Amino acid sequence: MADDKTLDDLFLDTLKDIYYAEKQIVKALPKMAKAATSPDLRAGFEKHLDETEGHVERLEQIFDIIGVAARGKTCDAILGILEEGKSIMDEFKGTSALDAGLVSAAQAVEHYEIARYGTLKTWARQMGKADIVRLLEATEKEEIAADQTLSQVAVADANRKAAA
Amino acid sequence: MADDKTLDDLFLDTLKDIYYAEKQIVKALPKMAKAATSPDLRAGFEKHLDETEGHVERLEQIFDIIGVAARGKTCDAILGILEEGKSIMDEFKGTSALDAGLVSAAQAVEHYEIARYGTLKTWARQMGKADIVRLLEATEKEEIAADQTLSQVAVADANRKAAA
Repeated sequence: MADDKTLDDLFLDTLKDIYYAEKQIVKALPKMAKAATSPDLRAGFEKHLDETEGHVERLEQIFDIIGVAARGKTCDAILGILEEGKSIMDEFKGTSALDAGLVSAAQAVEHYEIARYGTLKTWARQMGKADIVRLLEATEKEEIAADQTLSQVAVADANRKAAA
Repeated sequence: MADDKTLDDLFLDTLKDIYYAEKQIVKALPKMAKAATSPDLRAGFEKHLDETEGHVERLEQIFDIIGVAARGKTCDAILGILEEGKSIMDEFKGTSALDAGLVSAAQAVEHYEIARYGTLKTWARQMGKADIVRLLEATEKEEIAADQTLSQVAVADANRKAAA
């Protein structure tokens, strides 16, 4: 099969997808931080913005390792997830449930990334690329930690206020 | 604030979102099962279709408990995630990487659901609705198990073939 596509093609396709997604998230996080009423939640979004900029850099290192120019590919999934987050921000603006909605939107983003990094890591491991596995794993750990932090903030602050 | 929105509103909004999403997934899974070349993967999708129909029923029970007619609300996130899965199916059709791509698409779906059910469960707990928490938790567990099964299938079969 001369035109067969392999795991390398799928890996590159998905790498471009998450690269595009991370760049969209870099744009979305400052808006979410600005919208948050809880100082803890705002600080959480700002911290994760710093991390996300690091995730973009790690992806650029991976593009470099495989010798392909870093370029994104429109990711309908993240556009849909962020669009939904925007709707929540509009719909719950000025209400006591806004922060809980922001946490929910952010956790949907985190889970999308956890899925993608998990998949990419599995593939990189099967392709025998230990250096790439390490880079992906470092980001995956930060995404999982961000999700857990959001859960804690939600329970401690945003949701309690919304239920008041 | 007469027009304040509370956690109850956000809960209902998100319930409608995941109800719409589950119904879209019920439509997508047979196509994914049909596309899969690995018998294990196909069986996995078919099993998860049965479970997903149960998730729709559990959501209808929750609508019933809160006394609201079961109705979905367009969920841009799941539409984007499924659209991306469709692209992968088209792009990798007939190639040795198709199954790995299907697993990846399905795991993105699972993670979206895990995020949503986790959020809904947290909110239901804060609203003191133990019966609803139990229903959400039952589905959440099945989504997490489905994600783990997909990881196992991926490692055991689809990816190895794609890397061959």
